[in-house]
Amino acid sequence: MKHYLQFKDLRADEYAYLFERADFIKRKFKAVEKYQPFADPDRTLAMIFEKASTRTRVSFEAGMYQMGGSVVHLTTGDSQLGRSEPIEDTARVISRMVDLVMIRTFEQSKIERFAAHSRVPVINGLTNEFHPCQILADLFTWLEHRGRRSDGTLDPGALRGITVAWVGDGNNMANTWLQAAQILGFRVHISTPRGYEVDPAVAGVPRGDFWQVFDDPMEACRGADLVTTDVWTSMGYEAENEARQKAFAAWRVTPAMMAQAKPEALFMHCLPAHRGEEVDAEVIDGPQSVVWDEAENRMHVQKALMEYLLLGRL
Amino acid sequence: MKHYLQFKDLRADEYAYLFERADFIKRKFKAVEKYQPFADPDRTLAMIFEKASTRTRVSFEAGMYQMGGSVVHLTTGDSQLGRSEPIEDTARVISRMVDLVMIRTFEQSKIERFAAHSRVPVINGLTNEFHPCQILADLFTWLEHRGRRSDGTLDPGALRGITVAWVGDGNNMANTWLQAAQILGFRVHISTPRGYEVDPAVAGVPRGDFWQVFDDPMEACRGADLVTTDVWTSMGYEAENEARQKAFAAWRVTPAMMAQAKPEALFMHCLPAHRGEEVDAEVIDGPQSVVWDEAENRMHVQKALMEYLLLGRL
Amino acid sequence: MKHYLQFKDLRADEYAYLFERADFIKRKFKAVEKYQPFADPDRTLAMIFEKASTRTRVSFEAGMYQMGGSVVHLTTGDSQLGRSEPIEDTARVISRMVDLVMIRTFEQSKIERFAAHSRVPVINGLTNEFHPCQILADLFTWLEHRGRRSDGTLDPGALRGITVAWVGDGNNMANTWLQAAQILGFRVHISTPRGYEVDPAVAGVPRGDFWQVFDDPMEACRGADLVTTDVWTSMGYEAENEARQKAFAAWRVTPAMMAQAKPEALFMHCLPAHRGEEVDAEVIDGPQSVVWDEAENRMHVQKALMEYLLLGRL
Repeated sequence: MKHYLQFKDLRADEYAYLFERADFIKRKFKAVEKYQPFADPDRTLAMIFEKASTRTRVSFEAGMYQMGGSVVHLTTGDSQLGRSEPIEDTARVISRMVDLVMIRTFEQSKIERFAAHSRVPVINGLTNEFHPCQILADLFTWLEHRGRRSDGTLDPGALRGITVAWVGDGNNMANTWLQAAQILGFRVHISTPRGYEVDPAVAGVPRGDFWQVFDDPMEACRGADLVTTDVWTSMGYEAENEARQKAFAAWRVTPAMMAQAKPEALFMHCLPAHRGEEVDAEVIDGPQSVVWDEAENRMHVQKALMEYLLLGRL
Repeated sequence: MKHYLQFKDLRADEYAYLFERADFIKRKFKAVEKYQPFADPDRTLAMIFEKASTRTRVSFEAGMYQMGGSVVHLTTGDSQLGRSEPIEDTARVISRMVDLVMIRTFEQSKIERFAAHSRVPVINGLTNEFHPCQILADLFTWLEHRGRRSDGTLDPGALRGITVAWVGDGNNMANTWLQAAQILGFRVHISTPRGYEVDPAVAGVPRGDFWQVFDDPMEACRGADLVTTDVWTSMGYEAENEARQKAFAAWRVTPAMMAQAKPEALFMHCLPAHRGEEVDAEVIDGPQSVVWDEAENRMHVQKALMEYLLLGRL
Repeated sequence: MKHYLQFKDLRADEYAYLFERADFIKRKFKAVEKYQPFADPDRTLAMIFEKASTRTRVSFEAGMYQMGGSVVHLTTGDSQLGRSEPIEDTARVISRMVDLVMIRTFEQSKIERFAAHSRVPVINGLTNEFHPCQILADLFTWLEHRGRRSDGTLDPGALRGITVAWVGDGNNMANTWLQAAQILGFRVHISTPRGYEVDPAVAGVPRGDFWQVFDDPMEACRGADLVTTDVWTSMGYEAENEARQKAFAAWRVTPAMMAQAKPEALFMHCLPAHRGEEVDAEVIDGPQSVVWDEAENRMHVQKALMEYLLLGRL
């Protein structure tokens, strides 16, 4: 049994498989064709949210239904993750009743403890440290737009050697980009304000030429195949909002910054976006932006991921 | 693609079709027979609630399941409608993942903005201005009881020329009755206390003999085929409760008021009801009341509506 | 139509049937085989929670999905049970739209009033007075481990004459054990601190030799086939927590207490558990404990119960 708690929980060949499956599953959806591997028997996903969400909620839940399965949605108000009983007990009980668990919580250690006592696969739907499902979606979105073979099929190998520029907070997204780069063989340029640096110890990646830090975000974007950022103040950091607005002022993704990247570079953002803060409207609403595809693709890559964790290679 | 944001979004012939489909769908339900046009592939409804609800929630959700589809239920606590991102962005993202969206919110403008950026049909589950699904249910309920042909089939034309008396608040229900009367060719008698008048500019209907205002609610009920009312203090107006109790005292639907209507007149109420306030127990629990059928019919007409918006005429 | 509001709502022969069905249904689940009697047509369960829950929530909801049905989950925040309208009206409306209702609330009288006006079966998911679904799960769990015939089939008659020791609070669980003992012909030994005694008037059982009160919990456990307890401070009694910690100190289930019971005795706990308070870790995590099976079995017995209430004997 496999869990998906960090990006490094899967190997490059498994990611190649997932990207191809996501492409197949998305085609089925777009063609309004039935594809329900979770219907016989019914497979149930428990979703545990300790932080609010729209995208993660809808993408997992609708995705599960489209696959023929079902969903139990638990929020901290309903459930008692680590409050009235040890997390280990909750894991033992819930994993007896459902086929799969997705958790959005704060500390990565919570999801690790849950997984250690779960009988069924556990998926990280966001922690303070990592957001692997989002990067999975982002990479699939890049492949969909820039990594197709001449016959239209997806070429997962096209990611090898590309450059991704991460501009902004050294957060869970940045950590996950580092893990992804190491596993899939691409380069990450990271530029964060002082005091908001990425911590490679958290990401668990070695120093190496697959990632590089830039003081100047313009430099980080030079020659990039993909420019991506996130809100300046993630959920849970609202008290720091004013300080962050000042510190991040030069890290807004502007048309000038995009002009540093390759002409065919894409722009991504995991949303919600604040136009005029971390990104200019001209960028996110412009021709290089693929943020709506990226949002939709959360659903499709997660369907592929759930299929793989539950049913293995088909 | 069609939305259902106001009653006037559909034409008379489309309503005739919906009433007939609702009748068919309800028969299936009552016969405990499977009818699942949303099962292959699975069709998913996202429901966004910014105001609490029991009836709207259960009727849409159970209805969708009965049709073979599935539901993602979002409340303001979970979601972020217009809070952390523009409504337009939420519409873009959610409508990429589901097949249909129902919204219960405050301002009609919110749902209009959402619909303008949605790739899938949007249904008004209640706004400050309109409540089209409720009137759809009410009209179907009237037809079911008073508009059948001798062979038992429903005759949507039977609505033409009837008189509906609206007694009470000049609210979203009253506005919607005005639109319905104009489209379907019946008359509405409206009687509200001073200060709670209906505003035809909001309803968007012309002056005309299809609707008439009465100072005296007894007058409004004279000769009516249907008498209907609502709570005196709708959700969101609790602060005005005391003033409303005084102002509305003469607008209670009493047996004497019902006696002004035709002998075969029906009584309806969209519930919850406060016996002894807007309606006497003898009326709502009496032989002319069809409020439980009316409540159940919310579900059946909404199933017909969702079927039409998603699959067109069958 | 039958409701399940108290344990005594069913007869011994009906319980024998339920235990056998639960065994069949659980085997299907463990074998990953489809068994969906609620799929054609879709049967919908409305769950109304006025008290938070994880186990009850997941067990009913996942169980319903596994049977091919669907679920509408209402919490007090969403719904209006007895707040804005009489419970009777809510019962009338909801029971028009769904096939089955489960309620977790405070006073037993609330669920009784709901059931009296419901068109569909109502299940008690926990009240201040009773918790019949939990005892159903506990008895099934005992049979599964200690009540099988030599050919592996379940022998519901094996419960006759066994002794169950209830150690701790004279609460809804204790009340339900008394009803179960009377109906199924086993004995209950109850030991509670002074001031927390079980009230046979609430349980509605006569004095009789099927139940006996012990001042000393060690005595109560002597020769028992099953030792079971609950948290000292149930939901809603948090203000009494300090007083309860003192009063219940001698009612912790310890290895010494388990040693009083038969060597093959089982330990059960409806969870969540507080190790070091009502039970020692050596007991709940020891070889006699079957608490995880017990938790999982909530789901399977409830599936059998819902099947019986909706479809009768198959």
